[in-house]
Amino acid sequence: MVREYGQDCPVARALDLVGERWTLLILRDLFLFGARRYQDFLDNLEGMSPSTLAQRLKALEDNGLVERRFYEQHPPRAEYHLTRKGRDLGPVLKTLKTWGDRHARPPSSDSGVEA
Amino acid sequence: MVREYGQDCPVARALDLVGERWTLLILRDLFLFGARRYQDFLDNLEGMSPSTLAQRLKALEDNGLVERRFYEQHPPRAEYHLTRKGRDLGPVLKTLKTWGDRHARPPSSDSGVEA
Repeated sequence: MVREYGQDCPVARALDLVGERWTLLILRDLFLFGARRYQDFLDNLEGMSPSTLAQRLKALEDNGLVERRFYEQHPPRAEYHLTRKGRDLGPVLKTLKTWGDRHARPPSSDSGVEA
Repeated sequence: MVREYGQDCPVARALDLVGERWTLLILRDLFLFGARRYQDFLDNLEGMSPSTLAQRLKALEDNGLVERRFYEQHPPRAEYHLTRKGRDLGPVLKTLKTWGDRHARPPSSDSGVEA
């Protein structure tokens, strides 16, 4: 399911793990909100299908970036948390945010005038 | 062609511009090598189709991250350069590289032993 770049480069290897569509936004939600349940992601990430979410979470769990913890057993209810490996992506999200703030303005504030 | 996340969040807006598959590796090549011709990208990014490359370069040019300069007119030959907006993505690639170096090891060096 995961399409790897197959390049011996740390950037490509990082993107093998977090470069799939929606993955970085799932991680962003975990940074912003801490523990998240399956439905929380769906509610906040409009346009992402449940099957895509399930695939992304499974890959993130398999690759050790998030872990699932059961907070109720009957019925079983789980929430997702960042692992250390996942938390170490903080600087990537921070630099993306900085760049987005500077260079990717929302359409409503885009006057069409270039500086 | 570009699938936008449509979220009012600078991370999502940044990913609208650079989150498509292959885009960050195209930018990485421009950081590593400076000016690149169309064929240079194809040679270095194994597995990327010519049509994908053409789409990605067009989007990057339309969004002002790269610019195309003609260095020969007969026949016309162009090379691609990073703009200021593109160069400002340097910290994103650097943090991805740092994370990849730490957490996404090449298979050959993966002993299977977790620290």
